[in-house]
Amino acid sequence: MKVVVLVGGVGGARFLLGLKAALGLPPTGPGPQGSPHTVTALVNTGDDVWMHGLRVCPDLDTCMYTLGGEIATERGWGHAGETWTVSAELAAYGAEPGWFALGDKDIATHLVRTHMLRAGHPLSAVTEALCDRWQPGVRLLPMTDDRVETHVVVDDPDAPEQHKALHFQEWWARYRAALPAHSIVPVGAEESAPADGTLEAIGEADLIVLAPSNPVVSVGSVLAVPGIRDALRAAPAPVIGLSPIVGDKPVRGMADACLTAIGVETSAEAVGRHYGSRTGTETGILDGWLIAEGESAEVPGVTVRDTPLMMTDIDATAEMAKAAFELAGCDID
Amino acid sequence: MKVVVLVGGVGGARFLLGLKAALGLPPTGPGPQGSPHTVTALVNTGDDVWMHGLRVCPDLDTCMYTLGGEIATERGWGHAGETWTVSAELAAYGAEPGWFALGDKDIATHLVRTHMLRAGHPLSAVTEALCDRWQPGVRLLPMTDDRVETHVVVDDPDAPEQHKALHFQEWWARYRAALPAHSIVPVGAEESAPADGTLEAIGEADLIVLAPSNPVVSVGSVLAVPGIRDALRAAPAPVIGLSPIVGDKPVRGMADACLTAIGVETSAEAVGRHYGSRTGTETGILDGWLIAEGESAEVPGVTVRDTPLMMTDIDATAEMAKAAFELAGCDID
Repeated sequence: MKVVVLVGGVGGARFLLGLKAALGLPPTGPGPQGSPHTVTALVNTGDDVWMHGLRVCPDLDTCMYTLGGEIATERGWGHAGETWTVSAELAAYGAEPGWFALGDKDIATHLVRTHMLRAGHPLSAVTEALCDRWQPGVRLLPMTDDRVETHVVVDDPDAPEQHKALHFQEWWARYRAALPAHSIVPVGAEESAPADGTLEAIGEADLIVLAPSNPVVSVGSVLAVPGIRDALRAAPAPVIGLSPIVGDKPVRGMADACLTAIGVETSAEAVGRHYGSRTGTETGILDGWLIAEGESAEVPGVTVRDTPLMMTDIDATAEMAKAAFELAGCDID
Repeated sequence: MKVVVLVGGVGGARFLLGLKAALGLPPTGPGPQGSPHTVTALVNTGDDVWMHGLRVCPDLDTCMYTLGGEIATERGWGHAGETWTVSAELAAYGAEPGWFALGDKDIATHLVRTHMLRAGHPLSAVTEALCDRWQPGVRLLPMTDDRVETHVVVDDPDAPEQHKALHFQEWWARYRAALPAHSIVPVGAEESAPADGTLEAIGEADLIVLAPSNPVVSVGSVLAVPGIRDALRAAPAPVIGLSPIVGDKPVRGMADACLTAIGVETSAEAVGRHYGSRTGTETGILDGWLIAEGESAEVPGVTVRDTPLMMTDIDATAEMAKAAFELAGCDID
């Protein structure tokens, strides 16, 4: 079975571990050879940012390190056994921004990436080269090779009567999403194109899944790349989403602050309706919508089913993936 | 007294420590305020190199870290307490070249420098900004803000019947200068210009010193920047050189391999003649030439004096600087 998954960072990466397990693949690492199952992840790059002259791709790296088996598991991002010597030295130079710490191991990734990007390679090719080392066992495709950077419009913390657009990373990592967002805009998305292979992967998929990632700044950014939404709507495969909202709260992260900014209630039903049905709407993309066990939701034109949705470990996450297979009518055996 | 010194890396940096001590300045760090003495170092940048997309300036950094009091003293280059996490990760990616290890602390310097250079600041301004942190107590001026990179022509190690030009760093750090050099060329020097302030510093100096640095790839590269040699020849101040050759061997480094490449014998006399006299020659730059105690040399038009020339510690190095003051007839009291 060919599965395509739209993912963000930490939650998306964890979902991919469980999805691989559900397909009988080792959660981390490659193989086995000869498996009939393949996974392609369309990864959000709207969080990407230039830091100290390095191109940082948080979601791609989180997926890569997680599936490569070297993620700092508790923190959810960055390397296991990471050190912070370079960042301490940058701070000693007074190099801004001080609120975004880059780990030493991580910096090697950014150096290789930046060097390749400056040499003219597209991000998708760079990601493939980086994955030669990490062997994630999943094809990681950036949503686009173009520069898209999500910005958040807030009251200027230094001049509250004025609005100010912050890079998503500044809003998220520096202000912990505590500054109310007037709007969230994937700057550059309108002029971007899907990375090579993206539309083909969607067209050839047997199943398409929206991971329980942030519906605005993760899955929403992927959907903002022209062509991807239409490809999902036209795909022969069923499209199943998993709600990142359980009990009217995001399972992790600060998705509620993002949903509020785009005028969507923080509930599984509201997010399902925001994605919408592939049938009978102009822009909807869902056939099925998985919500948390014991909850209910009404999403016109979409089959809703409840199932445990807490990714407490790989087994629990694999069960979520299997629930998606079942809802889609996919038989993987 | 205003002293201008032409320097390379390790040897030049150590000489500057002794020179500062001889002037009653603290060898490392700034000040004291109100001292009548200033030191300007014209630093070789021919060793500079792009590595993993970072601009690395070995001689400037060696001077900066040494005078800032954080050099790895035994090694002579790089930070005290340096770690190598990033380089190990770059190797894990298979990122070439593997023969040039960048320390983690050092990488922070290169990140700040590269970021500022890419933003359009000249190297001299970048160096000044970096020195805000290190407070070397010496004005460190790159010889030029333009890109000059010394290349060494050798028999191609992979195809010995052919010649190949290697970046100086590859010849020096990878091959330990063991590949016989057919020629050594500061590529880009002809089109380069002295960094802002260089010619003024030479013109206003009370004493000009050639540190006992490599006469070919350190002092020689500085002299290859158009305008610097003429400024030295026209300067009102006396110009005193210190021989890096003691007992027909370089005191440190592999200067003999460089001298052989340009057809100069490895002796204090031959290097003195290579620099030449300011009077009675077309291109010479010396008034005085300090050679090692007990040796003799004949350099037409140049006053030669022998004195201990081993920089075993700061006191010994300070005595070398005082010998230069004396030979120049400078009274610093």
